[in-house]
Amino acid sequence: MNVLIVHAHPGTQSLNASLRDFAVERLRANGHAVQVSDLYAMDWKPALDGDDFLERDPARPLALMTDSERAFRAGTQSPDIAAEQRKLDWADAVIFQFPLWWFSMPAILKGWFDRVYAYGFAYGVGEHSEQRWGERYGEGRMLGKRAMLVVTTGGWESHYGERGVNGPMDHILFPIQHGMLYYPGFAVLPPFVAYQVGRRLDAAGYAALTERLGRRLDAIETTTPIAFRPQNGGDYEIPSLTLRADVAPGVTGYAAHLV
Amino acid sequence: MNVLIVHAHPGTQSLNASLRDFAVERLRANGHAVQVSDLYAMDWKPALDGDDFLERDPARPLALMTDSERAFRAGTQSPDIAAEQRKLDWADAVIFQFPLWWFSMPAILKGWFDRVYAYGFAYGVGEHSEQRWGERYGEGRMLGKRAMLVVTTGGWESHYGERGVNGPMDHILFPIQHGMLYYPGFAVLPPFVAYQVGRRLDAAGYAALTERLGRRLDAIETTTPIAFRPQNGGDYEIPSLTLRADVAPGVTGYAAHLV
Repeated sequence: MNVLIVHAHPGTQSLNASLRDFAVERLRANGHAVQVSDLYAMDWKPALDGDDFLERDPARPLALMTDSERAFRAGTQSPDIAAEQRKLDWADAVIFQFPLWWFSMPAILKGWFDRVYAYGFAYGVGEHSEQRWGERYGEGRMLGKRAMLVVTTGGWESHYGERGVNGPMDHILFPIQHGMLYYPGFAVLPPFVAYQVGRRLDAAGYAALTERLGRRLDAIETTTPIAFRPQNGGDYEIPSLTLRADVAPGVTGYAAHLV
Repeated sequence: MNVLIVHAHPGTQSLNASLRDFAVERLRANGHAVQVSDLYAMDWKPALDGDDFLERDPARPLALMTDSERAFRAGTQSPDIAAEQRKLDWADAVIFQFPLWWFSMPAILKGWFDRVYAYGFAYGVGEHSEQRWGERYGEGRMLGKRAMLVVTTGGWESHYGERGVNGPMDHILFPIQHGMLYYPGFAVLPPFVAYQVGRRLDAAGYAALTERLGRRLDAIETTTPIAFRPQNGGDYEIPSLTLRADVAPGVTGYAAHLV
């Protein structure tokens, strides 16, 4: 497979950097082709703004969706955006690797989604009718591709348990896994999470961690994705996009969106 | 009161910019002092990195928590970070105003949290013992201050309902409202959300929206905050930080963390 790793950590000698290098090596040893977008090393521009649309008339008010679509269709996006889109089109699987900062991704990675996910590329795709509300949540440009988060956090696993104070990890990652990955069509594999990384790992701890990550990477082609519900498969009413009363009756929130 | 508005939208003629100006005027008319951090206008640096710690020895590997704490205590943080911390210390209430992009905040605002929330300022505060796990979730530097999100989104309200395809808005905002605001001690007011803003509002639509926002701003001192559970109040076991079995028995996820 072609695997893209999108990596977001500023420390060149960090645990995250080590895990990135481990993943590249392991995936290549397994016969995959690997590209890495190391966002800090690339000095990736995080903030979406009018400069991203090269031939925009600056006299007109910024209209993000219209400007994004026009630049995407006309090939007048900022070249760094177009380059990342080409990597996504090339990839069969994408790994997003980052430390959990404030229960979300680092700003530089959020800015990758804000900018690379153009209108017409990752959203604003497909027809809207009585049967379909665009190609999203199970359809879209990333259909057939797999995605997986590789996340580190200083907190303990119990703090992220189903009754842990931080909220369950699956719920915290829902805006990312469902909203950013499943939305444009990725099949989302269960996340790899390394807890309690605030203290320096000893050699045995690091070996155990990479052993566990290695097993996940070895199974990247075969791991069963999270069973999010397709939007246009009949479970949701259109256009309210609310679950039909007879689908998972009485269930709300996260669990309602799993088959 | 002293009110800080942290605003994150690149469009100077956007709906978000209009709502910001409306809020400033309304709050001042009500007798409040207002400061605005307009992150795009300030050209705010989104990506946390080693350059944020002015006297860091570049020969040493980056150690984010240690470097952040040292710079915070020594007064050697990047001046833009220190300036935002002073605004937070000044404020009695903080409004975070932004468009919901990919079910989260724009990267430039995430980078405000990543950088301004230094170790020793917004986390890494207070003792760890058998009764306390630091000052967080209901305690901390922001104790006594109020915070409120003002959010716009193109999606429909039903798409964000308790069985809507995007997930319930309260759940999507949980990493922000609980993880970024309640964590350092803010009392978090219910969010103000404007749905279906993708099409241009007519005059009546804009008047209705600002009427609704105005009522929320008028009540900023008196609105009852979201009843998140304090971490150190006895409901959570320490150090597992898991709800005691007799607290909201059987309840998991979002609802478990509301009193």
